[in-house]
Parts: sequence; structure tokens; C-alpha cells
Amino acid sequence: MRERERIARFFAPLTDGEPGSYHLTDDAALLEPPAGKKLVITTDSVIEGIHVLPGATPEQYAVKLMRRNLSDLAAMGATPWRYTLNLHTPPNLPDTWFAEFAATLAEEQQQFGLVLIGGDSTSGPAPIHTTLTCFGVIDGHPLRRRGAHAGDDIYVSGTIGDAALGLLLLQQKSTAMSPLIERYHQPQPRLSLGQALRAHASAAIDISDGLLTDLAHLIDASHVGAAIYRERIPLSPAAQQMLQHNSTAWDAILNGGDDYELCFTAPPTARTFLHTFAGTLSLPLTRIGSVSPAAGLTLYDHERTALPLSPNGWEHS
Amino acid sequence: MRERERIARFFAPLTDGEPGSYHLTDDAALLEPPAGKKLVITTDSVIEGIHVLPGATPEQYAVKLMRRNLSDLAAMGATPWRYTLNLHTPPNLPDTWFAEFAATLAEEQQQFGLVLIGGDSTSGPAPIHTTLTCFGVIDGHPLRRRGAHAGDDIYVSGTIGDAALGLLLLQQKSTAMSPLIERYHQPQPRLSLGQALRAHASAAIDISDGLLTDLAHLIDASHVGAAIYRERIPLSPAAQQMLQHNSTAWDAILNGGDDYELCFTAPPTARTFLHTFAGTLSLPLTRIGSVSPAAGLTLYDHERTALPLSPNGWEHS
Repeated sequence: MRERERIARFFAPLTDGEPGSYHLTDDAALLEPPAGKKLVITTDSVIEGIHVLPGATPEQYAVKLMRRNLSDLAAMGATPWRYTLNLHTPPNLPDTWFAEFAATLAEEQQQFGLVLIGGDSTSGPAPIHTTLTCFGVIDGHPLRRRGAHAGDDIYVSGTIGDAALGLLLLQQKSTAMSPLIERYHQPQPRLSLGQALRAHASAAIDISDGLLTDLAHLIDASHVGAAIYRERIPLSPAAQQMLQHNSTAWDAILNGGDDYELCFTAPPTARTFLHTFAGTLSLPLTRIGSVSPAAGLTLYDHERTALPLSPNGWEHS
Repeated sequence: MRERERIARFFAPLTDGEPGSYHLTDDAALLEPPAGKKLVITTDSVIEGIHVLPGATPEQYAVKLMRRNLSDLAAMGATPWRYTLNLHTPPNLPDTWFAEFAATLAEEQQQFGLVLIGGDSTSGPAPIHTTLTCFGVIDGHPLRRRGAHAGDDIYVSGTIGDAALGLLLLQQKSTAMSPLIERYHQPQPRLSLGQALRAHASAAIDISDGLLTDLAHLIDASHVGAAIYRERIPLSPAAQQMLQHNSTAWDAILNGGDDYELCFTAPPTARTFLHTFAGTLSLPLTRIGSVSPAAGLTLYDHERTALPLSPNGWEHS
């Protein structure tokens, strides 16, 4: 199928009739933000062999691409609205790949409430290389990495490390079906949480590079420090099981990426709200430490001994 | 240099203090379009070995990336405003590459009036792969591919085929300095022309894939046909010289891409304005044919004989 036909057949339907997309037949798209709203813009690439495994299915590809970007909107408290797509594929990729990729994007759009407005496609040598640029809308101010104050609590949503442990299993060619592998393939952008946190949190970041690295970014941007307690980090039953067999799993939990949970800070006055809201969302929000005035990240073990960290927030184990 | 340091040193200055960029330290950027304006959004990738030659200099890379996108804004009549950048580079690329790439982007920004607001960078196997998403602003309606009417004149700006002939010279390892090679490396997005055409033209497209292909897109979108005259196609002295030695150069002129001139249609009542405006811009605007009611593109030679074209608007020679 030729490129134009492929766009018309598989991708133009993803515009869902949005007039400014011109049905993907023009040189650019037109965007009229809703009156009084600001746009929040994020962009991330997903490259075969880097962000997804070589030979990832088109479904896995589309899910990772979309959610990696949506997680950035979640961290800012924005609501997904529109996106553009850049797709580079090798010439021998069958039409069924595009059909399945687009079908998954259609499901993702439906679930998260956004539509495609434009993009570009190229054909050439492997690997598959895609970029999504995502437009969210927001009233008022976005949540930012900057804003944490000494004395604030530090929270994470969900459970930490599952995706990195899932990736370990995949790299070990494990054939077991594990919820950890599912977490690696199907991250959940915490959009409702991020939107609610704008009124309660002082700073937030999504955990894409690893808990320690991303928390280090947050405290750097806020010009504060942090003390967190390893035993308080929420772990799924599957992660706890892996830890029992293999204590080096801590490295993946602390430094592995791809969880796409939110790490955020909030004053102690927000505890009641956050406790109630966690119940509403059916999503654990766990206090793992607190913000300190002096710069630097300290990680304590179960005996309250500080564990060694590199200057970049990465533990050497 | 680590990725964060590289972003801070080379790319954060490209935000030029724009507050919504957050100096490239947050998860996303904030964009508040000027009151009453709409946004025009386009995105294009530039991949080493596809859109630039293998081993292209960082300057050539940055210029092609920026102007390829700006040309799409020109075709819609929009004014450049902001952009995001996705940069994928192999790990062995020296810091000087980034310094030179960013320095050229800084010059381009200055010349065309836009600033960087966000992006993402990844490191991995070659080739270099970059994507720019460009935001223009516009009052009222953009110029589109759709809108040409039977009886309209068909124009092109500048001269046609230079970039494709320059690429031929480069592929033949020609060591001669030629203005054709310069045209391949340094396309000129026709922004002032596009902005003025919004009040006078009925449809427009930029010539990125080749004159015949792009004109075919315009008439398809407008549900009309076109008759154009090969001898009226404006050629530079260097292109004319190549044609004298090699009549197959017509294929590159008609079907080669990368000129980034505008091809547009306008009613005959616009002739006086366009003649005067071409003088103001010091840019030839040449009438190469006219819009016909029946679908299909016809190309006539100097004896007014229709030349054979494939259904896709590509000449088989």
C-alpha cells in the first residue's frame, strides 16, 4: 500500500472528524484552544530496541508511545486533548502492522480522550522510530517539578519497580506470564491523580527514568533535599516475591524506569484529602519520606542506615 | 557530557527566556496562544541518509530540519512562533556536534522569529534522527491545498528543480561549487509570500516532494484538474546549463523534491497584485498553467504535446 493510501485508510479515521486536522490531507493542522485554556505540550519518542523490545508487537508499540506521553501530561495535571504522530518504518513492514498499530491508537484515544490532528511518515532502514507530540489543556497553573518545601511529605502512587522487574524477566526470556511484564507493556498514566493534585501537591514528576533519578530531578528543581525510607516504598506482591529470591532486585526497583507512577510532594495538611482520594481512585498513595531543607537525596534502609547513592541519585549496589 | 548537562548547556539557551518552556527542566511546556490567534501545527522528521546525506554537517542538519517545517507553515500562510525538538543521536557523537547544531538552530530562530519550548533526546544506534514540531500563529483562515477553481492560474515561486539537481551533483561526488548544491542545503521557506497569499490565492502547497507530485496533491484536494506547460517552468541559469548537457535533468526538475518553493492557484484578477508583489519580494512568481474543471494533470511540452504522466503525477521518462 502506498503511503498516501495508508494514511487515508489507517490514520485519517483517528482524526475523528476534528475539523482542524483537515483529515490529514494538508500541510499543517489548525488548533483553536478552548477559550481561557492553556495548552500543555509534551513530546517523546519510542524507538524499537530502546523503549520497546526488538520485535515488539504494534499494540505494545502504540500503547507505550501514547502512555509515555500521557504520563508527562499527568505529571503537570493537564487533560489530554490532541496529538501529532511521526512514524518511521522499514519498507518491508506489512500493512497489517499499520492496521494493528492504528487500531490500538484508536482504543487509546477513546480511553484517554484525545484525537490525532497531524503528523508525518517516512520509510527507510530499521529500527521503527516513532514520536508523539501531545497537547493537553489546563485551567490555571500546571503542577511542576519545582515547588517542594522543606517539611512536605513525599508520596508515590501505585507500586514501584514492577515495570523494571518485568523488563528483567523479559530479558531473561522468561516464559512465565507475570503481572510485572504486564506493567512493563501497559503503563497507566495517572491523569486523574495529576489533575486532582494541582490543588493539593507542591511539586510532581512522573517516574519514567527510575524513582531515585526522578525524585532527584524534583528536589533539584525545587532547591531542596529529600529523605526517603526504602522499606516504605510500595511493592506489588510479585515484586516482593522477586525480592525474596534476589536481593539485587532492589536496584531495578529504585533505578529502573517505565513505572509511570507519579512521585509528588504535599504539605502534611493534605494527608486527609490524599488518604480519601486514594480510596476514590482505588490507587495507593504512599508516603515514602519527607522534604528536607538541605540539598541531597538520602535513602534509609530498615535499620535507618543511610544507603550509599551516587551523586546522580543512583544507588551503587 | 551527560544528557542533562548537554540540554542545559546547548539547548536551554534556545528557549530565549520564554517562560512556558520552563527552561527545559519540566515534564512538559506551557503554551498560551496570543488572544484571538489560532495555532497552525506541522511536524517533520529529518533522518540521516534520507533527508540529508550520510555524514551531513550539524549545520546542514539544523537548517534542513528547521526549514522543511517552516515551509509547511509558509504554505498555510502562518507566522512561525514556537517549536519542539526530538533528537536521537548515536552515543559517540562529540559535544562539538551538539554545539554546532544548537548554534545553527539559534541563527535560524533569530532569522525566522521562533523559539524552542520543549523536546526530548535519546541516545542509541545510528542514524541521527530528528523531529521538529513547529507552531505558527494565524489570524483568520489558513491557506489550504483545497480551494482551487477552474479558470484559476497556477503559479510557482522562485525556480524549480535546483535542489534535486544539486542532490544529483552531490550523489555524483561533484567537487564543483554550484548554486544548485547550495539550494539543496539551504532551502528558503517562502513565509512572506505565504502570508500575503492568504488574501489572494485560492490554494497552495509547498514543493517538498516534487512539482508534479505536489501539484497533483493540490488538484486532488480541490477536486479539479490542471494543465501546465513545461517550457514555462522557471529554471535557474545553473539548471538550464545542466539541461543543455543532459535532457534527463527534466526528470529531476519535475519530480525531484526539496525545492520548498510554493505552488499556488489564484484567479486571473490577482495577476496585477502578484506581479507587483513579486517585485516587492524580489522573488519571481511564474504562471505555469491553469486549473481545469476535469480531474487530472496534463503537462505540455514546447510543441503543446501532452507528455505522458503516471496516474500519480510522476513522469516516466
